[in-house]
Amino acid sequence: MKRAYLDNVAGTPISPAVLDTMLPFLKDFYGNPQSMHSWGDEPREATEVARGKVAALIGAYPDEIIFTSSGTEANNFAIKGLARAKESQGRHIILSAIEHFSVLNAAKTLEKQGFEFTLIPVDKYGVVDLQKLAQSIRKDTILVSIMLANAEVGTIQPIGEIAKIAKKSGAVFHTDAVAAVGNLPVDVAKLGADALSLAANQFGGPKGAAALWIKKGVRIIPLLDGGVQEGGRRGGTEDVPAIVGMGKAAELAAADMDQRIARLSTLRDKLIHGVLSQVKHSILTGNPAKRLPGNASFCIEFIEGEGMLMLLDNGGVAASSGSACTSKALKSSHVLTAMGIPAEIAQGSLLFTLGGQNTEEDINLALETLPPIVDRLRQMSPLYSKFLKGQKGGR
Amino acid sequence: MKRAYLDNVAGTPISPAVLDTMLPFLKDFYGNPQSMHSWGDEPREATEVARGKVAALIGAYPDEIIFTSSGTEANNFAIKGLARAKESQGRHIILSAIEHFSVLNAAKTLEKQGFEFTLIPVDKYGVVDLQKLAQSIRKDTILVSIMLANAEVGTIQPIGEIAKIAKKSGAVFHTDAVAAVGNLPVDVAKLGADALSLAANQFGGPKGAAALWIKKGVRIIPLLDGGVQEGGRRGGTEDVPAIVGMGKAAELAAADMDQRIARLSTLRDKLIHGVLSQVKHSILTGNPAKRLPGNASFCIEFIEGEGMLMLLDNGGVAASSGSACTSKALKSSHVLTAMGIPAEIAQGSLLFTLGGQNTEEDINLALETLPPIVDRLRQMSPLYSKFLKGQKGGR
Repeated sequence: MKRAYLDNVAGTPISPAVLDTMLPFLKDFYGNPQSMHSWGDEPREATEVARGKVAALIGAYPDEIIFTSSGTEANNFAIKGLARAKESQGRHIILSAIEHFSVLNAAKTLEKQGFEFTLIPVDKYGVVDLQKLAQSIRKDTILVSIMLANAEVGTIQPIGEIAKIAKKSGAVFHTDAVAAVGNLPVDVAKLGADALSLAANQFGGPKGAAALWIKKGVRIIPLLDGGVQEGGRRGGTEDVPAIVGMGKAAELAAADMDQRIARLSTLRDKLIHGVLSQVKHSILTGNPAKRLPGNASFCIEFIEGEGMLMLLDNGGVAASSGSACTSKALKSSHVLTAMGIPAEIAQGSLLFTLGGQNTEEDINLALETLPPIVDRLRQMSPLYSKFLKGQKGGR
Repeated sequence: MKRAYLDNVAGTPISPAVLDTMLPFLKDFYGNPQSMHSWGDEPREATEVARGKVAALIGAYPDEIIFTSSGTEANNFAIKGLARAKESQGRHIILSAIEHFSVLNAAKTLEKQGFEFTLIPVDKYGVVDLQKLAQSIRKDTILVSIMLANAEVGTIQPIGEIAKIAKKSGAVFHTDAVAAVGNLPVDVAKLGADALSLAANQFGGPKGAAALWIKKGVRIIPLLDGGVQEGGRRGGTEDVPAIVGMGKAAELAAADMDQRIARLSTLRDKLIHGVLSQVKHSILTGNPAKRLPGNASFCIEFIEGEGMLMLLDNGGVAASSGSACTSKALKSSHVLTAMGIPAEIAQGSLLFTLGGQNTEEDINLALETLPPIVDRLRQMSPLYSKFLKGQKGGR
């Protein structure tokens, strides 16, 4: 049976070349980078090479990269660590309403410890309201965190403008770029951010490797207190194989960035146009123009997402209905809600995310598989019957 | 050249059988355990199988295991999360003076946020003073954290008694068992603890996989806020390959525990007796009786540890002078200091740690290599010349 993995947002496969780079560190070079004997040499050198490659992918200096175990850890580290480092100047934080749960929930935890936060609304395309952002900045605002691109709907934020507004008052500006880095050109020098999160498993690297970029001179309080690793800013034995894999994945992502973006954008557009033309009452979510090259997200009206995902899976197609972190607890996505999409439409959320390994065949399989599934589910949908009756009645 | 890796405390090699178990999850089963489609099935099932094996190693229920990325993360999670969960009842924490930096520094961070902590002293063998512990417990003591075994000097604490004292007043009791689990039989039901940290790379598992065991019903505030992973208690995409490796390593560690302890204890004792008899002015550190089966730790007088480690490395032997987390910042170990060892002796700290892969040949190599190195270094040691003169003068 043909199969198409179109859920790369939940984690890309590890590229074979990446795994090849990792294997020696899973087998022979098992030393600890902090060791003074020669068993530590290869792991230490390889960790620093990887740091350089990750830095190069985002135009940073190597010593501005702090490796973490996940994008979630990087985001928690940023929100909690940057806020704590500036708490003597104030305790107000600003986020967008469509941040990942690792950002939103980190802020909620800080709220219980005496901080406050404000959520900035987004428009129907998921773009942050710059005017509201400017109005929300207070004297005691110490941290603004707004994502670079949204994983669920693909919308890319005008981060340059956001950074300018955020930093006018002296707040630190962090951007969750987990969905963006490796899939879009990202240059921290141009962004104007102070800190940025990224994760290897969004661009062909392994699970267990991610990073927080933090601009030279910006203070942060560690989340993982401990030893001298990562310049004393993140304790814990370095996960050398994963870090080495992240470095190689960063190198590969940088090398074919332009061609990959062109190729995936074409595939994405074919998928978007195919779905919109072949599936009645389907809506593209997110920004039609400024979106991630691999993101094709929809709401399919009169249908529950869960059934659609399971039937797609039976047809060999992996898709999701939003963040993998919430997929098992199917509630209306807070992202779609913030974009003003009514709950009964949001429940039909359908997200295809493409990675470097996907081909036109994968897109064709999705486009062959989806329409009959939608028809079948609508035949059983009380909402759809009601809609059809309403149409008839209206004639 | 013969080589002997006797620095297992800095991380054991991954057992070949463990790597074999991990490989399919690095290659084919790249799905996210949280996904609703079938790509998530194998990773999800394998994660739960691993959870069962880790639980079995310590006599716990599977749903009491929360996977983390390192022992350091598990310790930070325990200290910060347990303290925060009980802060309405008090803000006083008790630790031993010889805890790992991930415990000590986590407490220092909490101190800056309004908590207080007390350090309990240890005797010359590194055993916690039970009377001082009992005296230090206050009405507002909410958390006691004392390690099961010390990685640097091998001393095993009387955790059962400690737990009883700690819990009398209603405090939660955590034990850092990173150095112990996999190397000693550990049964959480018998220990009387509420939470316990362990790490895979201490018993043949990979870096990047560790866990916090937390007893059913004990509340903890997440350190990594985010999605629904780990029962909502630790966000972030699961590092499935590392977790699967940890499960296999736990299974293997349980299977040959008794034979391995017997074998390593014999090798350790040969090494200890060899060093003490062949190297003049060498002192065994830690508890001579109740110590980790793989731990042979010494202070070699009139010598600086750093030079010894480098010459041992030249001779093919990997050793360390304490925790890998601090080895590059060679200060007097806080553990040795707490045991009352003077700084000039503590600087000659030398630690051999054995793992399941070590053989008698490794021990022989260490015993052949060390004595001439010590002689050579002492010839250059002003402290030693002074000592010799003093001896002559005294005659």
